[in-house]
Amino acid sequence: MPSNYYTFRNSVPWLILFLETVFIILFYFLFVGDGPSKSSISYPAFQDVNHMVIFGFGFFLTFLKRYGFSSPGFNLLLVVLGVQCSVLIEGLLVLFLQVTIEDGLKRITKAAVSMIAVVISTGAVLGKTNPVQLIVMTVVEIIVFHMNKWINNIFLQVPDNISMMHVHLFGAYFGLAVSSRFSEPSPRSEKNASTSKSDLFSMLGTLFLWMFWPSFNSVLAVNGKRRAIYNTYFALAASAVTAFVLSVLTTKDGKFRMTHIRSAVLAGGVAVGYAAHSIEHPWIAMILGLLASVIAVLGSWCLQRCLYPALKLHDASGVHLAFGLPAVLGALAQVVLLVINNWTNLPRLGYLVLIQIGAFCLTVSIALITGFITG
Amino acid sequence: MPSNYYTFRNSVPWLILFLETVFIILFYFLFVGDGPSKSSISYPAFQDVNHMVIFGFGFFLTFLKRYGFSSPGFNLLLVVLGVQCSVLIEGLLVLFLQVTIEDGLKRITKAAVSMIAVVISTGAVLGKTNPVQLIVMTVVEIIVFHMNKWINNIFLQVPDNISMMHVHLFGAYFGLAVSSRFSEPSPRSEKNASTSKSDLFSMLGTLFLWMFWPSFNSVLAVNGKRRAIYNTYFALAASAVTAFVLSVLTTKDGKFRMTHIRSAVLAGGVAVGYAAHSIEHPWIAMILGLLASVIAVLGSWCLQRCLYPALKLHDASGVHLAFGLPAVLGALAQVVLLVINNWTNLPRLGYLVLIQIGAFCLTVSIALITGFITG
Amino acid sequence: MPSNYYTFRNSVPWLILFLETVFIILFYFLFVGDGPSKSSISYPAFQDVNHMVIFGFGFFLTFLKRYGFSSPGFNLLLVVLGVQCSVLIEGLLVLFLQVTIEDGLKRITKAAVSMIAVVISTGAVLGKTNPVQLIVMTVVEIIVFHMNKWINNIFLQVPDNISMMHVHLFGAYFGLAVSSRFSEPSPRSEKNASTSKSDLFSMLGTLFLWMFWPSFNSVLAVNGKRRAIYNTYFALAASAVTAFVLSVLTTKDGKFRMTHIRSAVLAGGVAVGYAAHSIEHPWIAMILGLLASVIAVLGSWCLQRCLYPALKLHDASGVHLAFGLPAVLGALAQVVLLVINNWTNLPRLGYLVLIQIGAFCLTVSIALITGFITG
Repeated sequence: MPSNYYTFRNSVPWLILFLETVFIILFYFLFVGDGPSKSSISYPAFQDVNHMVIFGFGFFLTFLKRYGFSSPGFNLLLVVLGVQCSVLIEGLLVLFLQVTIEDGLKRITKAAVSMIAVVISTGAVLGKTNPVQLIVMTVVEIIVFHMNKWINNIFLQVPDNISMMHVHLFGAYFGLAVSSRFSEPSPRSEKNASTSKSDLFSMLGTLFLWMFWPSFNSVLAVNGKRRAIYNTYFALAASAVTAFVLSVLTTKDGKFRMTHIRSAVLAGGVAVGYAAHSIEHPWIAMILGLLASVIAVLGSWCLQRCLYPALKLHDASGVHLAFGLPAVLGALAQVVLLVINNWTNLPRLGYLVLIQIGAFCLTVSIALITGFITG
Repeated sequence: MPSNYYTFRNSVPWLILFLETVFIILFYFLFVGDGPSKSSISYPAFQDVNHMVIFGFGFFLTFLKRYGFSSPGFNLLLVVLGVQCSVLIEGLLVLFLQVTIEDGLKRITKAAVSMIAVVISTGAVLGKTNPVQLIVMTVVEIIVFHMNKWINNIFLQVPDNISMMHVHLFGAYFGLAVSSRFSEPSPRSEKNASTSKSDLFSMLGTLFLWMFWPSFNSVLAVNGKRRAIYNTYFALAASAVTAFVLSVLTTKDGKFRMTHIRSAVLAGGVAVGYAAHSIEHPWIAMILGLLASVIAVLGSWCLQRCLYPALKLHDASGVHLAFGLPAVLGALAQVVLLVINNWTNLPRLGYLVLIQIGAFCLTVSIALITGFITG
Repeated sequence: MPSNYYTFRNSVPWLILFLETVFIILFYFLFVGDGPSKSSISYPAFQDVNHMVIFGFGFFLTFLKRYGFSSPGFNLLLVVLGVQCSVLIEGLLVLFLQVTIEDGLKRITKAAVSMIAVVISTGAVLGKTNPVQLIVMTVVEIIVFHMNKWINNIFLQVPDNISMMHVHLFGAYFGLAVSSRFSEPSPRSEKNASTSKSDLFSMLGTLFLWMFWPSFNSVLAVNGKRRAIYNTYFALAASAVTAFVLSVLTTKDGKFRMTHIRSAVLAGGVAVGYAAHSIEHPWIAMILGLLASVIAVLGSWCLQRCLYPALKLHDASGVHLAFGLPAVLGALAQVVLLVINNWTNLPRLGYLVLIQIGAFCLTVSIALITGFITG
């Protein structure tokens, strides 16, 4: 398609340049004050999240043969655009809604966290889209995600650190919805092949994500940071063990399968995200991690046989299994924990549960609807 | 060996699943309180140790052609199982021996540090064992290591941070003892070949270990943390320089040999481990690093010619040279430093020296004996 | 050249060994006290700089096919020698000039920062020199750099954190001057070819540098650390976006070109280095980043056509474009910002501007002259 390609060559740079100019102009108006002089976020914590988004996800997505070598670079471009966009939207909210102003470091950290939604969605549509579509998707998704977060914050009064955890849920379902609008590539095409070398780089990215997940789950927690860290660690441990076990059990030749491990190893961290700071005993986190991993691996076995052909979905990098389903499990677990903790206080319990379920449904439906429209 | 292979396929997942179930049940009983609210270990320090164990050692061991690609993954599985096991044993000690309870973060950090013994042993037996054997070895070694640490703490009153430094000693000799029970693979087999690509990944792992070694040597030090950091840094620097020099001198073609560098670069960090927080002047640390590096490279030259054929040992990844001998040197240096520092106080000196030598002998002999039995 | 090669084999190890012995002896005399007990530099900040120098630059330079695999190792050797040398020179200054003594951690951090000059110069001469020449260059450059810094500090009273930022300027022009004394290798030689695999490793190094640049720009800042962090982040973001745009626009086939991206992505961080802690609004930093990136990419387009053939320069790794020109821009921007900020106070303004320009000219000329002599 030379004509198509020609259009690409012409439009990509100008689109990016236009965006960047708009960003700089808006920064002039929107990034003014500096907020309180004492940041609630330490610099190493910000660095950890930054590592996850740029390095971890960049190499996590290198497993496809054709996209391998440009993937970390292009991922950097998307993240950098998205973070600027996200910081600006926060600035707009500060300006129009009189939200209290936060310090620069916290704003970048929150922007980096919300970029995880975009990166997850990118994983779902990888191999089907061209760069222009990805860039447009990034900007639209960041705007919709902030809208969703804002609705959650204002109308349902979900605290900030919980609504931020909707990134996985939002990212996975937005990505799937967008993905469903594109035709499925032929399954045997070279694009989806993976090599052992690219698998090793992908493993590198997965290990990076695995190691920084406790930072991610604890960075925005107001209290219970330490608890969030070790709960996440044990949930990840349990889910890593389960991933290896199930990978051997479900494959015919009894070998570890990279695809399973990649998606299931992280499932525990995703599932425990909502409740990491409030779980009191690590064994609860471990059971959650185990369940999440089971869902991710068995899900890959079932869904690829039954559901996907029916819905004409194609989930190239297992995004739905790695982030979507565990996030659903996490939201569910959070509700169950709420029920147990507030058993004595029934009216408040009903209210809290309603809010959580409301926030969950809202997020998923907004993600699906806007994803379809974007697609 | 199809029947053997069949057994493997059947037993590995069930063994792991059984372990994980036991772990979760025990966690319910043993990981109860949260200890003091203020942790003596910062989160970044824990992350550094975690990086070392999972990332550094994972890629450090990728240099063998055949094991390269699954090695970081399998390393993750072993570490995750071992850390859970180690945390539980600490919990048992708290329960039965009324040891003061520590906070969650410190417990995981100590567990990660003791996992280094297992990872080192794994390096020694790599290429000779199947996964089931490795998993059993992990669990047994962790239990014996904690037993040894506990004996050191109670009967010899060695402080915690010193007895933790026995990981190198214990890991290397345990690994060697286990390794000696397996037949030596044919030296020309494809398994031991290395490629330049896998060498680059291995270099990546080595650099990671090199950079995080100061964190490792300082993380458990009660006072003198800063001193431990810069002493370790200079010891590592001296040993890196010596490694390059000796690598050129001992090879015929005068090129840097990856194997020498890999083992000798880290020797300085190992040797200085025991005394890093108490050495007053960096030049002492530098001389220690230099000596450790000399021992590692010349040792590889001598031992592979004389000692190994006699004892029928085969040390695939140079574990004995990289960790065993430098740790012996470090223990020796610690005794010498004690002698110098307490020269004026002879009775106390004799007592202290006796304790150090006792702890050293105890650790090595326990490691060798239990290693043989495990093998 | 077997005779030449024979000389190399003979001289490299003895040269290094001699240096290391001298270092240890000097350490005995010069690294005595420990300075104030409270360090102004946290350990994670030091680790970030250490990562940059060893890991980031080590892999940043792996893109040349032939040097790829030994480059991270040799880089480690140079850094380790340079850091020891640099710490010793600081020690000499403390001894003879009665400068206030600093704590160990800060001394190593400053040494690591000044090593960046050497690493940049190494990039410029890579592929033309043998190891002996590189080691001699390292030692000479470190000595001259400290001389230059000392002159700046004493006679021009430039504060320490600003004079440290001259590393890019000094490194790039020193490297170019040394490089110009060597004959240009034939452009088609295998040495300069790059493979997609080595490109991926190089990308890894670039991403590492990109992520740790905010740490680097803030580590020595006395106040305004947080501001330095987010200004650098946004400058890097703007320059990454511009790098991608220009890379597509300037190449004929409209694809991202790794060389452009590698050099331009970091330009923003370099340019903002001088003023990061004093820029009040991120949009200024973003414009700086954008300009730096434009200069780096367009510079590569112009200079390689016009200037280099005339001056018989060959800049293998684009060091001049990635670090030299953006540093000039940064120095210029700093002067402009000074003019704007001190507009009301004309005499002081003139004085300050003179000092900055003086420091700038001094650094460049010392770098060029000593570089020629070294070459």
